[in-house]
Amino acid sequence: MNHVSLVSLGIGCLGLIVVFFVYVALSRGSTGTAKMLEIAEEIHRGAMAFLGRMYRILVGFVIIVAILIWFGISRETSIAFVVGALCSALAGFFGMKAATKANVRTAAAAKDKGQAAALGVAFNGGAVMGLSVAALGLIGLGALTMVYGYDETAAQIISGFSMGASSIALFARVGGGIYTKAADVGSDLVGKVEAGIPEDDPRNPGVIADNVGDNVGDVAGMGADIFESYVGGMVAAIAIAATMLPQQVLNLTGAEDHRMYLLTLPLILSVIGLVASMIGVAGMTVFKNMNPAKALRGSTLLAAVLFLIGAYIWIHQSAIVNGVFFAIFAGTLGGLLIGWVTEYYTASTPVTRIAHASKTGPATNIIHGFAVGLESCVGPLLIIAGIIWVAYEQAGLFGIALASIGMLATVGITMSVDAYGPIADNAGGISEMSKLGPEVRKITDGLDALGNTTAAIGKGFAIGSAALTALALFSAYGQAVDAVRYAAGEAPIIMDITNAKVVIGLLLGGMVPLLIGALTMTSVGKAAGQMVDEIRRQFREIPGLLAGDENAKPDTARCVDISTKAALQEMVLPGVIAVLAPLVVGWMMGPEALGGMLAGATLSGVILALLMSNSGGAWDNAKKAIEKGEIEGEAKGGEAHKAAVVGDTVGDPFKDTSGPAMNILIKLMSIVALVLAPLIALL
Amino acid sequence: MNHVSLVSLGIGCLGLIVVFFVYVALSRGSTGTAKMLEIAEEIHRGAMAFLGRMYRILVGFVIIVAILIWFGISRETSIAFVVGALCSALAGFFGMKAATKANVRTAAAAKDKGQAAALGVAFNGGAVMGLSVAALGLIGLGALTMVYGYDETAAQIISGFSMGASSIALFARVGGGIYTKAADVGSDLVGKVEAGIPEDDPRNPGVIADNVGDNVGDVAGMGADIFESYVGGMVAAIAIAATMLPQQVLNLTGAEDHRMYLLTLPLILSVIGLVASMIGVAGMTVFKNMNPAKALRGSTLLAAVLFLIGAYIWIHQSAIVNGVFFAIFAGTLGGLLIGWVTEYYTASTPVTRIAHASKTGPATNIIHGFAVGLESCVGPLLIIAGIIWVAYEQAGLFGIALASIGMLATVGITMSVDAYGPIADNAGGISEMSKLGPEVRKITDGLDALGNTTAAIGKGFAIGSAALTALALFSAYGQAVDAVRYAAGEAPIIMDITNAKVVIGLLLGGMVPLLIGALTMTSVGKAAGQMVDEIRRQFREIPGLLAGDENAKPDTARCVDISTKAALQEMVLPGVIAVLAPLVVGWMMGPEALGGMLAGATLSGVILALLMSNSGGAWDNAKKAIEKGEIEGEAKGGEAHKAAVVGDTVGDPFKDTSGPAMNILIKLMSIVALVLAPLIALL
Repeated sequence: MNHVSLVSLGIGCLGLIVVFFVYVALSRGSTGTAKMLEIAEEIHRGAMAFLGRMYRILVGFVIIVAILIWFGISRETSIAFVVGALCSALAGFFGMKAATKANVRTAAAAKDKGQAAALGVAFNGGAVMGLSVAALGLIGLGALTMVYGYDETAAQIISGFSMGASSIALFARVGGGIYTKAADVGSDLVGKVEAGIPEDDPRNPGVIADNVGDNVGDVAGMGADIFESYVGGMVAAIAIAATMLPQQVLNLTGAEDHRMYLLTLPLILSVIGLVASMIGVAGMTVFKNMNPAKALRGSTLLAAVLFLIGAYIWIHQSAIVNGVFFAIFAGTLGGLLIGWVTEYYTASTPVTRIAHASKTGPATNIIHGFAVGLESCVGPLLIIAGIIWVAYEQAGLFGIALASIGMLATVGITMSVDAYGPIADNAGGISEMSKLGPEVRKITDGLDALGNTTAAIGKGFAIGSAALTALALFSAYGQAVDAVRYAAGEAPIIMDITNAKVVIGLLLGGMVPLLIGALTMTSVGKAAGQMVDEIRRQFREIPGLLAGDENAKPDTARCVDISTKAALQEMVLPGVIAVLAPLVVGWMMGPEALGGMLAGATLSGVILALLMSNSGGAWDNAKKAIEKGEIEGEAKGGEAHKAAVVGDTVGDPFKDTSGPAMNILIKLMSIVALVLAPLIALL
Repeated sequence: MNHVSLVSLGIGCLGLIVVFFVYVALSRGSTGTAKMLEIAEEIHRGAMAFLGRMYRILVGFVIIVAILIWFGISRETSIAFVVGALCSALAGFFGMKAATKANVRTAAAAKDKGQAAALGVAFNGGAVMGLSVAALGLIGLGALTMVYGYDETAAQIISGFSMGASSIALFARVGGGIYTKAADVGSDLVGKVEAGIPEDDPRNPGVIADNVGDNVGDVAGMGADIFESYVGGMVAAIAIAATMLPQQVLNLTGAEDHRMYLLTLPLILSVIGLVASMIGVAGMTVFKNMNPAKALRGSTLLAAVLFLIGAYIWIHQSAIVNGVFFAIFAGTLGGLLIGWVTEYYTASTPVTRIAHASKTGPATNIIHGFAVGLESCVGPLLIIAGIIWVAYEQAGLFGIALASIGMLATVGITMSVDAYGPIADNAGGISEMSKLGPEVRKITDGLDALGNTTAAIGKGFAIGSAALTALALFSAYGQAVDAVRYAAGEAPIIMDITNAKVVIGLLLGGMVPLLIGALTMTSVGKAAGQMVDEIRRQFREIPGLLAGDENAKPDTARCVDISTKAALQEMVLPGVIAVLAPLVVGWMMGPEALGGMLAGATLSGVILALLMSNSGGAWDNAKKAIEKGEIEGEAKGGEAHKAAVVGDTVGDPFKDTSGPAMNILIKLMSIVALVLAPLIALL
């Protein structure tokens, strides 16, 4: 079925061509004043320097793992692993490049042409990332399936692709997360709380690092995360299709030859999704003159509807039963529902509740915020359970993998909307630092506030898809183990939860996300502490800096350096643990224990991800609600606001470092297990 | 084997007789000055009034559930359920009665006779609770096995006993937890933070409610919790012994008749444990003149060693293989290890780290404390996994249940040490309120600080035993389902974690602890808010109160009333959810999904319990470390101290309300499933 691979490759390349044109159009935009360009250059240099240094470290890691896979599993899997790592790194690079160009041009558009133009520029910046993720995923998997085909062995090989993407993703997310929050927390603690100067004030030496952080954390990190889910869902679906009983979901009876319908479905769905996304992105040129929130929602919904129509037509005309469509539909709808639940908890009555609780001080702010975070897990867990129920009823384990594809097929547009947020945020920072005045700031603030909501929805998507992808990969792992055992004449494994090995695996798996959470939180705490010391030192030692003397320049490079070093140093241990944990447990305790471990890690990882992301988002917006005067009797600078700032600061590493790390962690552990399956199946 | 039941009954009664004598001796102690007695009476009245009102509500609940069990399952199970509820309530009642007598007498002993005497009185107060728990457990199970015997049906019946104990425990823990923290958080926020008066200052109208709270939360709530683990472990072991293949752990081959050795082992171990505990309690009369920490540790270790020797001798001389002893030993040792890990995280370098982080404000205090909480889960999860591994290798699922008995067999002494803490705390409060001067306060403060450590260790024990008991009950559930299916000619169920039903159960189960956590945190937040308003009102409206006028009396009864009402109102929903959730899932989705639910709830419940209890304890002690001047450059009242107070306040509902509620929740869900097993086994 090489023509499906060819189409994937073709549409993927078309996607990259579109990316290129969007990028060129973006580059031609005005960069505003000289001051603006100078700041933007500083941010751009910092971000690229970090990415470069991170990738250099990762090259070593990739080489070591590739050698191990080469000799331990197979040459082909090793190659696929390297290609996966490369594609993920490229997606991050393209996204960052565009984002750091778009931020200043958004500010300039806001200054010169108003809100609609600014929205358009910021969105195009995000679209480079969104479309790159989808296009590179299709190119990578299209090329690999073209070479290796679609059989069971090929499925095993392309799992290496997903593992490569996962590995880069974990380091990018953890490193980026530590970077951004060390800078953010550190500069807020000294700047906003101690010195009483506003956010993004150019006197604050940490402010450039903070803006760089938005790019390395929220753009590159997020992109790598979603790339991984996107690819992981397809790999899991192909792996399951390669070993399942095809009769289950085909109208043709007893026709083993028709397995190809199933094997190619994941790529076909993603092709339809990318085309739909490109139409959605193009639609923004029409929508952007509407209210920005409606414009973003409109283009997202347009792409989703087009994707569903396309998917339905394809399935209906093929030999696949119609029920399979409902598994996909459940994924698409479930993603939107989780997004809405996330929006409710981070932008609605729960936020007001936290804001009111701030009146009795930071302690009650934290207690209520944490309670909101706990509560916010309930809806998404129910939705994920519902998706699994529908998908499994309709198409068995294959359905679960398809649901995850359904959730992410229009990643081209959802990622664009998501990456738009940090660009608007940066644009605001640049306006403030270049003193463009309140008019411009008002536009960028409006776009930024909307960006917070889209980011929250994006996070909901990321978590939901991570959970589904992890479960799909986990199912693929179970099937891969059984396939090896079947070939060796052994009975399939039973991962019964009353088996002590499975229980031990469950407990050990549940432990890993906690450990990674503890490590990343501590890293942010430590790095933020160093940042605080450095900023305090500069305020103390550079004469006239705090007073606002024109000639007193803060040493921003030093702060960038602190964040960079801390992030690179602290990202290694979590990454290594995530790769080693499933390997050690699988090797020492066998495939049942490893299965238990994946289930435990997925459950506790999803819980931590939801809890931390949502409470963090809610704290952030509770602070903003007080700042905007939405809470009667409270205002910026008052006691309640100070309490809310504490909550916001606690929420920073929650929502931008540790929480998102969980998404990748659970996928990475599952994919490592899937790659290892042939080695441990008979233990 | 009726003589084992008889011995259990006999030793249980002997335990109650010892309790009676300890209580009488306690009552004869001096109550100090008239002012002290007056305060003590107020605390006593408040505590008893709360217990009375709570029990009245629970009578309704017990009657409804008993009727449902009567008609839905069996008359006998229903009776056992009522007996279990009664025993749990009685244990709580005895413990509270003694604790509220011991607090003032501890203060008086500190005043008149010094530290050793005070320690002795406080410990005896705790011993009433500790020995009551063990004695009532043995009496209840002894009586039931005497009547119904030890076969499979009897095992099903006595699971009702455990469910009765669980139900009361959940309400007592949740109600007590909300009560104590509403009072504590509320009076601290206004008293310590706003008005700047010390803790336990008699001017603070919330201070009596705070002291009542220590009794209803930390004594009655904790007692019901541990009673439940103690009973649950035995019930699970008997249930597993009734359906397992006995050859696995017996030296005799093919001897079905010798199953009795296994069926009676749980009660025999608990009898040995109670005797060992009584010796340990008696040993305190010798130890109490040593350093208090050593005294408490000495008596605990003495009892543990005696228990292990007794258990080894019994097993060695019976037909049971020696390996079974190692399962028990793993439990005993594991309990101590978890206690030590808990102590490390709540009283050692991690606490210093949090204290230092307080220098940069409340946000970094919270971030570091939360990270410590996450990290503190790692050790206990590894230990629990290790216990399961040893226990299962030696004696299969039976071993897991025995390990949980091994951890709790000496509950008589571990509970005594644990209940001693809140008594010492109350004694400190009474000394402060009756102005007994710094000398006395120094003694009670010393005992109180030690009480915090023993409480932390006790919490570690409670969580560890809850996890093991829940897993043991879960195993018993699986066996009970299979037994019913076997009788009906059906194949055993396979709860494979790649089965979609099991995965859905896992997700839904993982959700329940989060929901209960959110509900209880919110309840504390709301009730504390009401308390804050009331205390502020009194300070404003009662002339001379804050100034310290002798004639200005705070209206403490009103604060007691607020806590009582809030606790009673807010405890209902979590309790009902915990009972209904397994019922609904079992009924609608069958036994596999319910199995998944139990596994998910246990994992997420244990994680939340560890995270919340340990971070709460660490925040508390970080604040104390600053107060004691252990952190260079920081002192009480400084900025770092204020930040640490925020952490401590956040930690209050973490460690004393939501965290402990998880222990009971996971046991209750498992026991409900075990009771339901016959009804849903064939769905």
